[in-house]
Amino acid sequence: MLTVIKIGGNVIDDADALDAFLCDFNKVEEPKILVHGGGKLATQFGLKLDIQPQYVHGRRKTDKQTLELVTMVYGGLINKNIVAVLQAKGCNAIGLTGADAGVIKAVKRPVVDVDYGFVGDVPGSGVDVNILASLLGLGLVPVLAPLTYDGNGGMLNTNADTIAQEVAKAMAATMDVQLIYCFEKNGVLRDADDESSVIQQIEVTDFDALIAEGVISGGMIPKLENAGNAVSCGVKRVAIGNAAYISNILSGKSGTEIL
Amino acid sequence: MLTVIKIGGNVIDDADALDAFLCDFNKVEEPKILVHGGGKLATQFGLKLDIQPQYVHGRRKTDKQTLELVTMVYGGLINKNIVAVLQAKGCNAIGLTGADAGVIKAVKRPVVDVDYGFVGDVPGSGVDVNILASLLGLGLVPVLAPLTYDGNGGMLNTNADTIAQEVAKAMAATMDVQLIYCFEKNGVLRDADDESSVIQQIEVTDFDALIAEGVISGGMIPKLENAGNAVSCGVKRVAIGNAAYISNILSGKSGTEIL
Repeated sequence: MLTVIKIGGNVIDDADALDAFLCDFNKVEEPKILVHGGGKLATQFGLKLDIQPQYVHGRRKTDKQTLELVTMVYGGLINKNIVAVLQAKGCNAIGLTGADAGVIKAVKRPVVDVDYGFVGDVPGSGVDVNILASLLGLGLVPVLAPLTYDGNGGMLNTNADTIAQEVAKAMAATMDVQLIYCFEKNGVLRDADDESSVIQQIEVTDFDALIAEGVISGGMIPKLENAGNAVSCGVKRVAIGNAAYISNILSGKSGTEIL
Repeated sequence: MLTVIKIGGNVIDDADALDAFLCDFNKVEEPKILVHGGGKLATQFGLKLDIQPQYVHGRRKTDKQTLELVTMVYGGLINKNIVAVLQAKGCNAIGLTGADAGVIKAVKRPVVDVDYGFVGDVPGSGVDVNILASLLGLGLVPVLAPLTYDGNGGMLNTNADTIAQEVAKAMAATMDVQLIYCFEKNGVLRDADDESSVIQQIEVTDFDALIAEGVISGGMIPKLENAGNAVSCGVKRVAIGNAAYISNILSGKSGTEIL
């Protein structure tokens, strides 16, 4: 079983939490793939470089300068630090953007009403399953940055949840795959203020009702849509839980499973 | 024959020259490895980030902030842009720092009289020949950034000429290797102001005399020492020439060959 784990920005921003997570990730049985988000580092460096964040409909626009910034921070600083730490723990990590070995080719989001800039959407055929399987076959552990490429010489910025989902779905065509979204909460909570109110299982068909009830809201909506999409497309197991308890999420003792 | 080509900072700083170089590199027969330097981009971003360059004995010291800077600029921006451009040309490039797949492990330079900071020296055993050969075996073209790792969770800054030399020497144990240093001049010039005064062949034993004559001076001394070292350690062919004429250097019609 291939395990694809996505780790979000909040953990990346906290050095101690990240180190603890990478210790736990190192213990997860191979084959495995880590997908990391960006965190606040890009914003911090952007402010110092006088790159003003531009937002359209609440989403950050990736202009040319911002693309350079995230290529540096996500593809360089964050990715290489994670790889160096995993290597020290004995995990043969290899840091990759979508461009490297052509693992994830994307399409620049078309401008309809809004121009999001250099943002890449991953088509169904975007993930090169063969090369990822070959790298796994060498005993390597791919560490994927949230960056893709357009096939015309340019890099693109792609959401890490999307990368995790597309990689898990594509790999599911050739092997059993489980997909774990790790974040700072214990799972999908019935009461947002009560970490013990984790909903253990959610069926994709329950999403609409839970959104209507307000149990699923904000950033959890696209995260669960991603998760549900993966389940519908053949990923054997999809769960969402706390980055601090990976082994318990993997064993089903913690987190929310999407069915 | 494995071809290892090192491309320096001056070409990287010039977008048109870089694109022309990558076009030519794409035509070089596989297997091949590209090693790139840093160029002025790191200094430019460093100034914007208020990271003041510190020099010891004319060499830049890699303090913690500078290490973050070069990890971003060399490992992120420059490396991924080269990879994305090569991918667009049909070359299955994979960008790597030394940490990725553990390809080049280095040792932080010991502080004797001078503390160079986070600079990595590559020991004889530092290059993982097996994993590089496996990646080449998958039809991939490694693009190496001038960064290594210490095995204790940290990245290190390593000179690109050194990386090219160490990779060529290590790979020479298992296959025939040629090493080409590309830069902005036509080769080692007898008269520094006359690009037609290329010395076609230099024997390692001539180095001392050429240094005494002043023909080899400044940055060419360590470059030629690197080249000579590679020849002495089993690399079949070592040449130095103009990045604009790769195919002529490869065919022996241009550049300086080190014997």
